Amino acid sequence: MGERFFARVPRLLALTRGDPSGIGQEIALKAWSALHAEEAAPAFFMIADPDDLSGLARRLGLAVPVEAAEPRQAAALFRHALPVVTLRRRAEGLPGQPSAADAAGTIESIEMAARLVQAGQADAIVTNPIAKDVLKSAGFAHPGHTEFLGELARQIFGRKARPVMLLWSPQLAVVPATIHVPLAEVPRLLSFDLLVETGSIVANELRDRFGIAAPRLVFCGLNPHAGEGGYMGREEIEIVAPAVAELRRRGIEAQGPFPADTLFNARARAGYDVAIGMYHDQVLIPIKTLAFDRAVNVTLGLPFVRTSPDHGTAFDIAGKGRADASSLIAALRLAARLAPAQAALGATA
Amino acid sequence: MGERFFARVPRLLALTRGDPSGIGQEIALKAWSALHAEEAAPAFFMIADPDDLSGLARRLGLAVPVEAAEPRQAAALFRHALPVVTLRRRAEGLPGQPSAADAAGTIESIEMAARLVQAGQADAIVTNPIAKDVLKSAGFAHPGHTEFLGELARQIFGRKARPVMLLWSPQLAVVPATIHVPLAEVPRLLSFDLLVETGSIVANELRDRFGIAAPRLVFCGLNPHAGEGGYMGREEIEIVAPAVAELRRRGIEAQGPFPADTLFNARARAGYDVAIGMYHDQVLIPIKTLAFDRAVNVTLGLPFVRTSPDHGTAFDIAGKGRADASSLIAALRLAARLAPAQAALGATA
Repeated sequence: MGERFFARVPRLLALTRGDPSGIGQEIALKAWSALHAEEAAPAFFMIADPDDLSGLARRLGLAVPVEAAEPRQAAALFRHALPVVTLRRRAEGLPGQPSAADAAGTIESIEMAARLVQAGQADAIVTNPIAKDVLKSAGFAHPGHTEFLGELARQIFGRKARPVMLLWSPQLAVVPATIHVPLAEVPRLLSFDLLVETGSIVANELRDRFGIAAPRLVFCGLNPHAGEGGYMGREEIEIVAPAVAELRRRGIEAQGPFPADTLFNARARAGYDVAIGMYHDQVLIPIKTLAFDRAVNVTLGLPFVRTSPDHGTAFDIAGKGRADASSLIAALRLAARLAPAQAALGATA
Repeated sequence: MGERFFARVPRLLALTRGDPSGIGQEIALKAWSALHAEEAAPAFFMIADPDDLSGLARRLGLAVPVEAAEPRQAAALFRHALPVVTLRRRAEGLPGQPSAADAAGTIESIEMAARLVQAGQADAIVTNPIAKDVLKSAGFAHPGHTEFLGELARQIFGRKARPVMLLWSPQLAVVPATIHVPLAEVPRLLSFDLLVETGSIVANELRDRFGIAAPRLVFCGLNPHAGEGGYMGREEIEIVAPAVAELRRRGIEAQGPFPADTLFNARARAGYDVAIGMYHDQVLIPIKTLAFDRAVNVTLGLPFVRTSPDHGTAFDIAGKGRADASSLIAALRLAARLAPAQAALGATA
């Protein structure tokens, strides 16, 4: 019965707090409202302070019962209350006014999520937005979640990770080969090895986690018109095309490099499963143009599944009840779809 | 009566041939089919070889009568035939197989269009796609149409021009501050002067030609998240923000720099009339994602109006009857909307 049984077990997700002065806790309350009564929806627990959350629900007039819980109780509890695994740190900052004093709790929430997945007490991690400058002021040295999760994979799972950021939406999935670096550094960061490694991880995970038998990858050029035969830059000829050739040699359906500007209309999108861009804006622009508020950030290359909403802390609207939970809800659904059933398996074993 | 009279005079447009091995002549025939019977549509004449065009119409089974004409006859003729101002060079290349022998005719067609507008025999120029590598092999030294038209402005109109490329669609209008250069060169090409000059030209022409009383300009950052306060690049702080401040000091409604990835969703687009990007793909990606086949390329900063379809020669589908004339039709309509009534005025004077 194995396969069939596991496929029917609902997934249990660990949701981090994020920066408590941002919209993370508000959208978590709203996501619970949207999902708890839906039979096939994934259950989740949040790692935060239960009093912070119930206070926020009251202030925003959201009818969300909040209950402190252990992870093992969370799946059953989820249908009638938002289960909260207690983070022993209450928020210091106010909505829209982040405090460096919250950095430790924000980081701890992420670490706890990774430990709970490692221990089989959750199936996947969904993270709420953090503010890098707030964490940085408290000594956090990672450029973002993605890189920090790579470090946690090493510390907690004892595995070398090579995190790759995938942005997913129903219309389009994209991967930036370089991420949070100044644009001026992109040309020298691009290399044959980087693109081959990125393409291999993407192809493997689209097959193993997304269930796409033979994923079709397309690569963007770096330059306008993909360099137009070397006329406007040679990176396509010297780096991208050889990497695509190597991936094909390994049996991966890779194509390109193509001019990025004509790669994201509906007709072009029908021809591939994921587009790999050379830098952040090249692929974040089209997905956020097409699927604003519905795109999900997925970290590939980790020993666990991690998704997050594709927006920031939104300090400007925090605490006002105006935050849209669509992207978080999409992130929760996608995490459940991608996650192996380790916690559920553990619970029934 | 002045204003009202001129506003009713239909505009007459000069359409260049483009590379005769591309789809330019095919979409011209299709544009005539779509527009000639429409009362308010602009009239145009093509600068090409009449026998080339009538032969192509026959081969593609398009019922388009082609007639050699002088510009002054074109407006009246347009309702029952496609008027062709004869270029004394027949095409040598075959569809999809461009020939360097056609470069001279391709260039001459553009020059003739500029001279006819200067002489008051056409109101604006609409250009068909050219292939830069074909022209380059024949000694053409300009990176593209935009730069060549700047040179013609100097030669033919005796005015120094500073051409600025605007991409226009009903959903979005964008300007790249740098255009056909390798991405690696963009950071050092950006300057305060470049952005202030570009912003001023854009604001002036949106007011004078597009009739927007107080155009709202937004500027993209260069780096991911617009540098996130200097954390990922300093061009926003050192170049873009000071240029925006200077434009505001001059009374122009400029804003930014903003992260480019969140600037092109419907809600963000409602807040501005034009987005100025730092490089080609940053703004070509969103407009071609949103308005593929309907975007129009407009050159600002010239002493005349010039538009073109926002696609290339499409050699791969040339001669097959499959080319889509939507973008050319949009380019013809926009040119007519933007053009002052100089030719019509000349004809009735």
